Formats: sequence, structure tokens, C-alpha cells
Amino acid sequence: MRYVHFSPDGHTRLLGVLEGSTIVSLGDASLEQLLAAGTDLVAFANAGRATGAKFDADEVTWLPPLTRPGKIICVGLNYADHTKESPYEQPSYPTLFPRFTTSLIGHRATLIRPLVSDSLDYEGELAVVLGRGGRHIAREHALDCVAGYSIFNDGSVREYQFMSPQWTVGKNFDGTGAFGPALVTADELPPGGAGLKLETRLNRKVVQSANTSDMLFDVAALISIVSEAMTLEAGDVIVSGTPAGIGWARDPKLIMRDGDLCEVEIEGLGVLANLVRDEAPQR
Amino acid sequence: MRYVHFSPDGHTRLLGVLEGSTIVSLGDASLEQLLAAGTDLVAFANAGRATGAKFDADEVTWLPPLTRPGKIICVGLNYADHTKESPYEQPSYPTLFPRFTTSLIGHRATLIRPLVSDSLDYEGELAVVLGRGGRHIAREHALDCVAGYSIFNDGSVREYQFMSPQWTVGKNFDGTGAFGPALVTADELPPGGAGLKLETRLNRKVVQSANTSDMLFDVAALISIVSEAMTLEAGDVIVSGTPAGIGWARDPKLIMRDGDLCEVEIEGLGVLANLVRDEAPQR
Repeated sequence: MRYVHFSPDGHTRLLGVLEGSTIVSLGDASLEQLLAAGTDLVAFANAGRATGAKFDADEVTWLPPLTRPGKIICVGLNYADHTKESPYEQPSYPTLFPRFTTSLIGHRATLIRPLVSDSLDYEGELAVVLGRGGRHIAREHALDCVAGYSIFNDGSVREYQFMSPQWTVGKNFDGTGAFGPALVTADELPPGGAGLKLETRLNRKVVQSANTSDMLFDVAALISIVSEAMTLEAGDVIVSGTPAGIGWARDPKLIMRDGDLCEVEIEGLGVLANLVRDEAPQR
Repeated sequence: MRYVHFSPDGHTRLLGVLEGSTIVSLGDASLEQLLAAGTDLVAFANAGRATGAKFDADEVTWLPPLTRPGKIICVGLNYADHTKESPYEQPSYPTLFPRFTTSLIGHRATLIRPLVSDSLDYEGELAVVLGRGGRHIAREHALDCVAGYSIFNDGSVREYQFMSPQWTVGKNFDGTGAFGPALVTADELPPGGAGLKLETRLNRKVVQSANTSDMLFDVAALISIVSEAMTLEAGDVIVSGTPAGIGWARDPKLIMRDGDLCEVEIEGLGVLANLVRDEAPQR
């Protein structure tokens, strides 16, 4: 099942399931509520889709699958070839940093290049949405916690990412965290979202090409390791890291600028497409 | 006004104001709601305190002033003498890292030393709670955004903090982020919470002693700089950094262990006291 949040009028937030180029509305329920309540997402959609209003997917505003997750935990340096192009040695433990919800945008929304820096970069990634949480989750049970998968473009303002030892600010500019288009329930994908082709394209040119099986810490390992430290909750999101090919590591650097189209495609999950626009100047 | 969240029975969450050793209940409103609604906190308390039920502050469970802030942004390396005792050079930009809400505990709750590591350390800090947000907030207007101040003990599991280039995991173990005892409204304190004596005591012995005026980036600067990147929201919390004296930088290292009492006192804000206990073993 491919869950989407969307707005038919730019105001109302509706839940729906995507069927081809049609979105079938499931009304004003939210994925946040359904996940917190432990709802069976496949059964819920099956119960509502026969009677739901239908919308043309090209005629609505797409919203992120989750707007206010309790935690968005991003993983850095989780593909060996990306670590090699970075200034870091490969750590033997996952490198975690946060996304705050204020940075999130949905499919087809504008990726915003802030005026303070000309260093906006793409990072195509597999996002994991938890349907169940816990603490000290054993690796062999970790995938039972996954409600589904989505795509994330971890848009990074590189100059700010490296202004201090912590990357937080460079990873949290408004309008830089693209998330979507849909939450695809785990039953439609291989266990752990493994073995999926991941491709990032800038202006139709392939800039990242990898397979989710190349992750150093796979989805089950990430859930288990993170839960050794902190309680995970239904609705939490783990963004599992980007492979090689980022623009900042190239010579000359490849930087996203106004008018660019950035697409991240993951096999079975669709294409997350966002147009880059400069931030509006302050008055 | 000194706002507290508390539970008289271990289940219900009530809002109240602290008057000496008495908590006057303001019912089941929450600071999250009041801040999101832009409520005048002084007027709200004045309207409710005459008729509120009274509780002995020693007979209730204290909860953090905010349980699920949208963002908890912590600042590292914000006192020069603490940077000197750290392995880092002083950056010219604030070093930001996250607290997730799952790590929060209130005054008098148990600080939990995780079984996986014998490296739990204290960090006494001034916490800033926003009553108003925005983007691109000018420094001269930044303090208008502050609803009040509180105390934070940024309990850090040092071995995990340094397992990768990002500190996130070492700063987010369950039960390590003590926050409270109260949210003291900004009208009761000097502008920006500046000039306040800050002292951390471990088992009654002073281990950190500083003044909030020693911050490199003061409260107004932090709000303004962070808002250059991201939208701040009412209810967001900025934890402004710790001064010198942490246990991990000592020789021999001073580590918090089961049975230790850690207190952080900030002039005008009270004392945040927490007893350290080992995590319960897994069954």
C-alpha cells in the first residue's frame, strides 16, 4: 500500500492511497495517529479505499508522509564509497544526526537554497518509518518494527554543515528535507528495504547510483543499535544515509541552484522530485 | 511566575505554579498548548492561582516543564573554558546538537546510567524556552521570543558521544536529560538570563561554577543565528551549553554512578536535583 498525505486545496490535509496516477482519499486521518495507535495500515486502506473520493495526483499538493515525527534520526557515513569521498575515517558505529520537522517538505515542493550560502547539495536516501518502537530491540526482531519505507533527499547546506564540529545546522535549513512521495508499507518490499536500486538525478543526469544493500549498517542493525541508547517510538523515522556522488566532493563542486530539478528514485518506492528555488529575499 | 508540570498520583499530568514549597494547580492545561497559543503566562497564572488546588511540592512527581518540545537544540562549546578542556578548537559558529524528547526527565527523577557504558557525565546548563518563533529573527528582537528559562543537566554518555564524529547518541540515552524544576517566566530574570551564577554539584561538592554571562554566544545571539537557518517555534527549547568542570576532562575521570546525587543550581531558577541509578538489567 502506498500511503500519501496531500492537500486538494492547499489547506486541508488528507490521507490517501496512491493507485497509479490517482489518490484515493481516506479522509482526515493521519499516519501519525494510525502509527501511534498500532493500526494495520494495509487493512485500514483496504477498508476505506472502496468508498474514498478520488483525486488526480497531478492536481493536488503533496505533503510529507509524516509532518511531525517524534524523531528523525539521520545516519551519516553509512556507505563506504561515500565515506571515502568525505573528510572522515569510517567509524565502526553509526554516525547519527537530527532532522528537525521544520525542515521537511513533500514531493514536488520547492527545495529552498538559502540566500546565506551557495552550497546546497543533494543526498538521496532510503527512509524507514517505524510502526512499533521499544528499547533494546534485538536485531532479529528489528524489522518487525518497520511500518514502511520512503525516500528522503537530505538536502545539505555544506558550508554551514562544516562551520562547527556538529552537522546539525547544515542539515536543518527550512525547505531542505524532501520526504516522500509515499510511505510504502513494508509488505510490498524486500525485508529491510535491502537490494533496492537508488539513483539521484540532477537535471535528469545521474549523480548517485547505488544499491541499498551497500549500507554498512543495514536497517535492522540501525534499529537495534539506536534502541540500545534510546526508546524508539511508532512514527519515528530513520534516514539511512547516502551513497557516493554528492556534489560537494566533486571537482569542480556541483551545487544545486535556482531552477535545478533534483530527483531521487528508489526501486519500488517511486521518484521524489523537487525543483530548487532561491529563498525569497527578506523585506 | 514559576511554572511546573507535576503529577499528584503518578498518572495525571497537571500544570501548576510553584509558590515556596507549595504547588498551586492550574488544572490540566499544558505549557505546550499555552505557548503554542501565545498565552501571556503571567496573566494566565494570576487568573487561576486564587482558586487552584494546593499540593505539597515534596509529595508530587515533578515532570519536565515541557515533555514533547518540537525542537530541543543544544549548544556545545559555548564557554571558552569548557572548550579548552575538550578535544576541540573553539569554532566561530555555534555547535548545535539535538536532544530527542525520549531522553527527558524532570526534577527529582532518576538519572539513568546505562549498563552499556561506565561514562555518564554531568553538564549543568541554562535552558531557554521560546514563547514565540520565527525565521531570520534580528538579534535586537530575539529576547522578545523568550517565554522563560529553566535548568538542564545535559547528561552525557561520553564513550558513545565519541564513537562517531557526531555526538547525538551519547546525548540521547533514555533518562539522561534532566530538565526543570520550573519554567521561570522571563520577567523574573535579567534580559537573556545573563549574569546568573551557575553551579553543578556532585554529592554536594561543587564541580562546575560559572556565570551565564560567560557564554560565547549569548541567548539573543543563539536565537538570531539559529533562526538564520531554521524556523523557530513557540515551545522550542535551546539548551545553551556547559562551562568547564565536566568529569570526563578530569584526571582521574569523575564519572557518575549509582547512588550519586547531581544538582545544578542557577541563580533565580532554583536547583535541579537528580539521583543517579543504574539502568535495570534486561530480562
